[in-house]
Amino acid sequence: MYRVDLNADLGESFGAYTIGMDKEVLQFITSANVACGFHAGDPLVMAKTVALAKEAGTRIGAHPGFPDLMGFGRRNMNITPAEAKAYIQYQVGALSAFAKAAGLKLQHVKPHGAFYNMAAVDEKLATAICEGIYEVDPALILLGLANSQHIKAAEAVGLRYASEVFADRGYMNDGTLVPRKLPGAMIHDRNEAIERTVRMVKEGVVQSIQGELIPIKADSICVHGDNPDAIGFVSLIRQRLLDEGVQVCPIEEVIAQ
Amino acid sequence: MYRVDLNADLGESFGAYTIGMDKEVLQFITSANVACGFHAGDPLVMAKTVALAKEAGTRIGAHPGFPDLMGFGRRNMNITPAEAKAYIQYQVGALSAFAKAAGLKLQHVKPHGAFYNMAAVDEKLATAICEGIYEVDPALILLGLANSQHIKAAEAVGLRYASEVFADRGYMNDGTLVPRKLPGAMIHDRNEAIERTVRMVKEGVVQSIQGELIPIKADSICVHGDNPDAIGFVSLIRQRLLDEGVQVCPIEEVIAQ
Amino acid sequence: MYRVDLNADLGESFGAYTIGMDKEVLQFITSANVACGFHAGDPLVMAKTVALAKEAGTRIGAHPGFPDLMGFGRRNMNITPAEAKAYIQYQVGALSAFAKAAGLKLQHVKPHGAFYNMAAVDEKLATAICEGIYEVDPALILLGLANSQHIKAAEAVGLRYASEVFADRGYMNDGTLVPRKLPGAMIHDRNEAIERTVRMVKEGVVQSIQGELIPIKADSICVHGDNPDAIGFVSLIRQRLLDEGVQVCPIEEVIAQ
Amino acid sequence: MYRVDLNADLGESFGAYTIGMDKEVLQFITSANVACGFHAGDPLVMAKTVALAKEAGTRIGAHPGFPDLMGFGRRNMNITPAEAKAYIQYQVGALSAFAKAAGLKLQHVKPHGAFYNMAAVDEKLATAICEGIYEVDPALILLGLANSQHIKAAEAVGLRYASEVFADRGYMNDGTLVPRKLPGAMIHDRNEAIERTVRMVKEGVVQSIQGELIPIKADSICVHGDNPDAIGFVSLIRQRLLDEGVQVCPIEEVIAQ
Repeated sequence: MYRVDLNADLGESFGAYTIGMDKEVLQFITSANVACGFHAGDPLVMAKTVALAKEAGTRIGAHPGFPDLMGFGRRNMNITPAEAKAYIQYQVGALSAFAKAAGLKLQHVKPHGAFYNMAAVDEKLATAICEGIYEVDPALILLGLANSQHIKAAEAVGLRYASEVFADRGYMNDGTLVPRKLPGAMIHDRNEAIERTVRMVKEGVVQSIQGELIPIKADSICVHGDNPDAIGFVSLIRQRLLDEGVQVCPIEEVIAQ
Repeated sequence: MYRVDLNADLGESFGAYTIGMDKEVLQFITSANVACGFHAGDPLVMAKTVALAKEAGTRIGAHPGFPDLMGFGRRNMNITPAEAKAYIQYQVGALSAFAKAAGLKLQHVKPHGAFYNMAAVDEKLATAICEGIYEVDPALILLGLANSQHIKAAEAVGLRYASEVFADRGYMNDGTLVPRKLPGAMIHDRNEAIERTVRMVKEGVVQSIQGELIPIKADSICVHGDNPDAIGFVSLIRQRLLDEGVQVCPIEEVIAQ
Repeated sequence: MYRVDLNADLGESFGAYTIGMDKEVLQFITSANVACGFHAGDPLVMAKTVALAKEAGTRIGAHPGFPDLMGFGRRNMNITPAEAKAYIQYQVGALSAFAKAAGLKLQHVKPHGAFYNMAAVDEKLATAICEGIYEVDPALILLGLANSQHIKAAEAVGLRYASEVFADRGYMNDGTLVPRKLPGAMIHDRNEAIERTVRMVKEGVVQSIQGELIPIKADSICVHGDNPDAIGFVSLIRQRLLDEGVQVCPIEEVIAQ
Repeated sequence: MYRVDLNADLGESFGAYTIGMDKEVLQFITSANVACGFHAGDPLVMAKTVALAKEAGTRIGAHPGFPDLMGFGRRNMNITPAEAKAYIQYQVGALSAFAKAAGLKLQHVKPHGAFYNMAAVDEKLATAICEGIYEVDPALILLGLANSQHIKAAEAVGLRYASEVFADRGYMNDGTLVPRKLPGAMIHDRNEAIERTVRMVKEGVVQSIQGELIPIKADSICVHGDNPDAIGFVSLIRQRLLDEGVQVCPIEEVIAQ
């Protein structure tokens, strides 16, 4: 039985500012990464987002970012492992409170933006993140980049984890993502992106930009809910997976397999 | 058997900025109110403060404030009850994570500064705070101003609470604090402050500025650790209480009596 | 010759967050109030907004707000006059730099949201604002609420000023706005709002909710550019003013009359 | 006639938080770098710092930093040149307002911390900074690291500049600072530091860690006012320079030579 999770970033509004079609994308995804107030989100937005996810029956996880609202957490910041750990614990704790108040439990933690990208290639940062999560709640699952330091650190720390793949990104021979500045970084053709995704899920391989078939574990697929086009793509990819006999279900069910 | 708690604000440093003699005051107090990153404190400071309190064997509680670092949470802000509830839950959750990571549990929640003062006289704010706490963890204790809306709201919500008194403040006939702008607001004489405190603890009364003896419940005494003088006063008041046969112990032991 | 200015708030986006149809509303207004980074706006947004206004040939002014991005500067904050003055000077200075870099000069200053509302009824705050502006540049014009403490303070300080009126708000007999919570606070009928505005501009009077004609000075009309409907209304009101023989021109030309 | 400026960072307090012995160090320095609210400082602190410097007759300059109060602007942030330029203009403008209100003019701009360090080795960042300054006021002087991209960019942009040297840092053969992690980065012996400084000022050379005499231009010496020890060192270095016949005067007088 093939299983995969669909995850998207939610709760990225802030104060008077609105981003994302949270309600719409919740119909299609099985895990929601909820912003925790550092790169996006605020306490009121978090409470509302948790309520929305509960109503939709979607699992929630923390999406901790850098303390950089002005840069939406997308700019590399040279933080120490101790800071990384503390930032993770603070944000995971904050979201946990809203989950508890709603009678829910957090399922997972996925670092956001530059925090995610930096830790993917930095063993110390990745380890600090995993230790931070484990100390707060050893039942939490790290949602990390397939084949990255995320996964290695989770294994070393003893933290449960799920491997995330991207439908619309190219991969290198070593299983890492093609950097955004290089040709082949993005898969622009929707059909191609869907075919690649199905193959990652069912066969556990993806064709690298060098043309080789490389192994990749696809526990969860990252999708977006920023605009109607993105929502349309989520709907398509979900339907295709179902048509292929893949069960679309939350991370914890995928990795419990 | 007389029992009373001594509480002080801790963890108010931020980044490169240091405030408070946390290590020193921890020797004398039984409950620490830890800043949660809104009016003061940052994730790294919170982690360190929890570690310090653990080492000292002192109970910890959350000290949530207004999102106003520039004003240290001391300026009234016209927030809605929904915002109040969300701000409380966010900050209580954030600190809980550091407590869990250290193998501790939060004992109490005491709103900070203007948040505390506004809620003391605003039933809706006080109720929002108590509901917020109760939803996150019904075992938490509200540390609120004696005779204020804090206490009434906690009773209405079914939240455990403790009544806080101030050694160095004057009281009105109705049991509320004399506003800081009025004469008699502050008790400047240390001996007088200590005598009043002992009486509040042992007799359950305090002399109002109108000259009458009024009833007051003294579960916890607010003390300060900002400077050597303040530390000296905490030491004096603690010793005097012990000399009077009063047991100085954490809030949860006081109210379990 | 009748003259009036049309002003709107611009540059309220922040980082990845977008608010307002700045480009569209710039076609119709003669003065733009540019957010300065406290309640909205960031340095990059400010640079872009000044460039947009320059391209449209629209005068710019500073729109300083409370340091409350989470509340969009709409929540009352109990700041001191000294803080008010410093917040005004900081934000006016920051925007001035972008104006200079673009070869422009600031025309005016209009406090934002709760800062505007609080100062309208608080002589000390209003005076601090006017002194702050005057000290930085005595040629700047305060854009303040007609009949409010804004205007009195500007007169007392010797600062140039313009009286702002609202097309869609009801007025009390004393010339102040009907509070938003009371019936009659908003004029929902567009035609009625336009008729009232024309009368304020040409006759210098407005009908209060008590039914009396009261004097009001209309140097500038506050309009909005948040959504297509609002833009449509700005277009209508502007056309109607032109049809009535009113010259729609920047504040400095209106008050130079 | 030998001339040199002594510069120190001032106005780094924030809200309830105090850093630095500003009043004390002002007796010895000739140029003050005033924090502008991003990495440190707030509007009220800026107003007070400008007043202090005015009273002491010390020239002031802007000390713009990264928007990272939690990290005190000391953490590298991957900002774009457009962001760098906008952050510089915003902060220079903000401080300019307080200068104007006090009847002063800004003399110089010195980027702070990680902003300074990153731009020292990044031509694009350095150019963005210099262009930003020049556009706001072509009379301003960049206070930049001797032999770094700061200086090259200022020359390319046509901005006035002054070369800053460090009494307590080691230099490489190419004139750049020895990275802090390497041996020889810091000169711990005070006498040695003072001798090196005198030589930089009078002979225009410094001995590199490789042992060679390399050319270096010393227009301004960076000193610190954080603690009594630092103040003591400033006093010593100043006295020794005077004893050597060096005139200690503001940057603008040094470079006007």
